[in-house]
Amino acid sequence: MAAEQDPEGRAAARPLLTDLYQATMALGYWRAGRAQDQAEFELFFRQCPFGGAFALAAGLRDCVRFLRAFRLRDADVQFLASALPPDTDPAFFEHLRALDCSGVTVRALPEGSLAFPGVPLLQVSGPLLVVQLLETPLLCLVSYASLIATNAARLRLIAGPDKRLLEMGLRRAQGPDGGLTASTYSYLGGFDASSNVLAGQLRGVPVAGTLAHSFVTSFSGSEVPPDPMLAPAAGQGSQVDLAASVEMWLERVCGHLGLGVQEPHRGERAAFVAYALAFPRAFQGLLDTYSVRRSGLPNFLAVALALQELGYQAVGVRLDSGDLLQQAREIRGVFRTAAAQFGVPWLQSVPIAVSNNIDEEELARLAQKGSEVNVIGIGTSVVTCPRQPSLGCVYKLVSVGGQPRMKLTEDPEKQTLPGSKAAFRLLGSDGRTV
Amino acid sequence: MAAEQDPEGRAAARPLLTDLYQATMALGYWRAGRAQDQAEFELFFRQCPFGGAFALAAGLRDCVRFLRAFRLRDADVQFLASALPPDTDPAFFEHLRALDCSGVTVRALPEGSLAFPGVPLLQVSGPLLVVQLLETPLLCLVSYASLIATNAARLRLIAGPDKRLLEMGLRRAQGPDGGLTASTYSYLGGFDASSNVLAGQLRGVPVAGTLAHSFVTSFSGSEVPPDPMLAPAAGQGSQVDLAASVEMWLERVCGHLGLGVQEPHRGERAAFVAYALAFPRAFQGLLDTYSVRRSGLPNFLAVALALQELGYQAVGVRLDSGDLLQQAREIRGVFRTAAAQFGVPWLQSVPIAVSNNIDEEELARLAQKGSEVNVIGIGTSVVTCPRQPSLGCVYKLVSVGGQPRMKLTEDPEKQTLPGSKAAFRLLGSDGRTV
Repeated sequence: MAAEQDPEGRAAARPLLTDLYQATMALGYWRAGRAQDQAEFELFFRQCPFGGAFALAAGLRDCVRFLRAFRLRDADVQFLASALPPDTDPAFFEHLRALDCSGVTVRALPEGSLAFPGVPLLQVSGPLLVVQLLETPLLCLVSYASLIATNAARLRLIAGPDKRLLEMGLRRAQGPDGGLTASTYSYLGGFDASSNVLAGQLRGVPVAGTLAHSFVTSFSGSEVPPDPMLAPAAGQGSQVDLAASVEMWLERVCGHLGLGVQEPHRGERAAFVAYALAFPRAFQGLLDTYSVRRSGLPNFLAVALALQELGYQAVGVRLDSGDLLQQAREIRGVFRTAAAQFGVPWLQSVPIAVSNNIDEEELARLAQKGSEVNVIGIGTSVVTCPRQPSLGCVYKLVSVGGQPRMKLTEDPEKQTLPGSKAAFRLLGSDGRTV
Repeated sequence: MAAEQDPEGRAAARPLLTDLYQATMALGYWRAGRAQDQAEFELFFRQCPFGGAFALAAGLRDCVRFLRAFRLRDADVQFLASALPPDTDPAFFEHLRALDCSGVTVRALPEGSLAFPGVPLLQVSGPLLVVQLLETPLLCLVSYASLIATNAARLRLIAGPDKRLLEMGLRRAQGPDGGLTASTYSYLGGFDASSNVLAGQLRGVPVAGTLAHSFVTSFSGSEVPPDPMLAPAAGQGSQVDLAASVEMWLERVCGHLGLGVQEPHRGERAAFVAYALAFPRAFQGLLDTYSVRRSGLPNFLAVALALQELGYQAVGVRLDSGDLLQQAREIRGVFRTAAAQFGVPWLQSVPIAVSNNIDEEELARLAQKGSEVNVIGIGTSVVTCPRQPSLGCVYKLVSVGGQPRMKLTEDPEKQTLPGSKAAFRLLGSDGRTV
C-alpha cells in the first residue's frame, strides 16, 4: 500500500480512475494471449491550447508517482469482476492482482518543457495489457496539468516579470483535486504563490492570503476586544491601546483627506484593528467593503500610521471591485501625499493588490506602463481555463512487437502517425531555432 | 482518522483544502475573542449558468461527508503554524486542534433540486471561526457539482428521454477528482452511465464501455489465438472455431454488400473475434478504425452472424468520427437489409452508439426526429462545461449574533442582501408557478 505511506497519496490518481473499456480490453488481450506483447503508446496533443503557439508539458511527477504506486487492491479487482461477465476465467483476475508497472518504461519531456503539437509528451512502452490500462489516468494527469501550466505561463508573459501573480481559484476549480492541480501547475507556469493551503502542505507551493469581506462585515464596531494592547515591534517599551491610537490617527487622516471623522465605517475600522492585533507585522487592508475613498482608505491609513508609531510597517492594501487600474492610481496618489504629510516615506510604496475576475485582457490593462498595481490575484481565469478548458491530449498505439500501427478513421485529422518518434529541435549557426 | 475508515475518504475534500486567508481570519477572530460568536453564511450563485433559466443544486452529500470528518490533524496544524506569525499564541493552535463541526448547522436545498439566483443552496450557521474556515471547501464542493448536474440536465433535455447518454470525459477532466465529480453529478443530472470505473466503485454510478481503436490497431491478423473455440450460448453442443466461422460468414456478408472479400481489414476482424471470444454476450463493434463501409461494418456483421449461430446477440456498434447522423442512417439501412437477407430480425435494431466531441448543437442534431442513433457518448462538453466552466458560487456572511450584515463594494452587483433568507415558490390556483 505505497499510496498510504506517501504523504501525497490521497492526491494521486488510483488505478480504477480509468475508463471501463480499458478493463474490457484488458480481458480481450488476455483472452487472446497477448497480455505480454510489447507495445508502445504516445501521449500528445494535436493543437496548441488557447490559439497559441506553445504549451508547457506538465504532470510528469504525478504520473511517476501514479506508476510507482500502481497496484490493484482486492477491492478493485472485486469491483472489476462485478463489471465483467460472470463466467470470466478467474485466472484473469489473478493476472490483474499481480500487475504492477515494473515492466513499463516511460520516456518524457522534462517537467515544464516547451511542447508542440504531435510531439510526444510521454512515450509509454511495456506489456500491452498494462500500458493500455494506463491510458486514462495518464491522460487525466498530464492533460490538465499541462493546460494549467500553459495558461499560467501565458498570464505571466502578459503580466511581465515584475508583477506578483497570486493564484486564488480553489473555490472555482472543477472539484477538490482540480484545485490542487491548478495551484501546483500555475506555480510551475510562473505564478508566485497560491491561496491554496493544501498546495503549500503537499506540493511546497508558497501560500498567501490575508482577509476577506466577511471578516470586515463581521465587525460592527461595538465589539469589545479582550486585549487591545500591542507591544512595540522592537519588543522594548510599553504596550499601547491600538484601538485608541487608531482613533487619534483617524482624526488626522480625515483632516488630511477632507473627510468627516464619522464617514469611515467603524465596523470596518474595528476589523482592521483586530487584524492588526493578530498580524502587526503583516497588516493588509481590504479597502472596498463599504467605500474605498470614504471608508477603506482612511481606516487603513489610520491603522497603518498607528502601527508605524510602534515600529510596524503595513504590507499592503487590496481591492476586489470597481475599476482596479484607476483606483490603484488614486490610492497611490493618496499614499504619496500621506507619506509626505505624516513623514512616513515607506507609505508611498505600499503594495497594491487587486482581484476580481481578471482575465488576459484585464491583466494586460493592469500590467500597462504606469500601472500602480503590484500584486494581481487571479482565480477562475487561471484554474478553469475558460478560453479552452481542456487540452485534448490523446494516447495512441504506435507499435506492437516492434511493428508500427496506425488508425485511419473517417476524419483525416484523427489519423495517427505510426511508429515510435524522436523529436529534434534544429538550431541554425546563430543558435536560433530554424 | 474518520477519512481513512471511510471508503470514499480519499475522494473527499480535506480541511486544508482552503484558502490561507480563512486561517489568517481565524486567528484574527480568535485574537478578538470572537471565535464562538454565532454567525450565518449563505452559499448562492448570482446568475444561472450557460445563459439558462435554472440550475440543479448538487454536492450536498460531499459537503455532509466533509463536515462530519472535519478535524485538523497534527500535521495540518503544524503546517498552519508555519504559515502564521512565529509569535502566534500557542492557545490558538490548541483551539484549532479541538475544532470540529458539531456546532455547525446546515440547511440546504435537497440534492438535485432546482435552484435559482440569490436563493441559498446552503445556509451554514455556527461559531464564526469554524463557519468561516468552511467557506472555500464548501464552495469547491457545491459549485462544480451543481454546474455539472445542470450541464447534464440541459444535455438530457436536448437529447429527450429515449437516447441513452454516456459520460466519458474522465481523460479531459480538470484533475482526477474533477473526473470523479463529473461522473457522479452528470449521473445525477440525467445521464445513464459513465465510463469512469472509480465512479462506479465509490458512487454507484452505472459504468459502461467496450473497446477503443488501440485494441483494433493492436491486431494485425497474423496473431494465433491460444483458444479460438467458443461454446454455444445455451451451454449445450460442441464448441466452434469462431475465427473460422467468421471467415465463412465474411464471404456471405461481402457478397451481400458487393465488396471484395479482401477489402475488410483482417487485423480489425481479428480484434473483433478476440473481443467476441472474451465477451460473447456483449460484443460491440467499433467501426471506424479503417473504413466504416468497407471494413468495420462487414467485419462486424461477419462476427455478429457467427455469434448468432451460437445463440449470442451482438449488443451494438460504435462510431467515433465522420458525420455521425448520416453514417447511423446508412448503417441502419444495411442492418435492415442484412436482417432480411440472413433471416436475423434482431439485427435491424442493433443499438448504434456515437461519440466525437459532441456539444449541445451536435446533440440536438443527433436527437432529431428520424435519427438512428441510440447511444450518445459525451466527454469534454459535459465534464469541462466549456460554455461556462465555473458556476461562480459565493458564500456571504449574512448575520452575526442575530444582527444582519451586508457589504456594499464598488460594484453594485456584488452587494449582498443582509439577514437570513427563506425562499418560497408561489403557485397559482392552477398549480403553476406565478
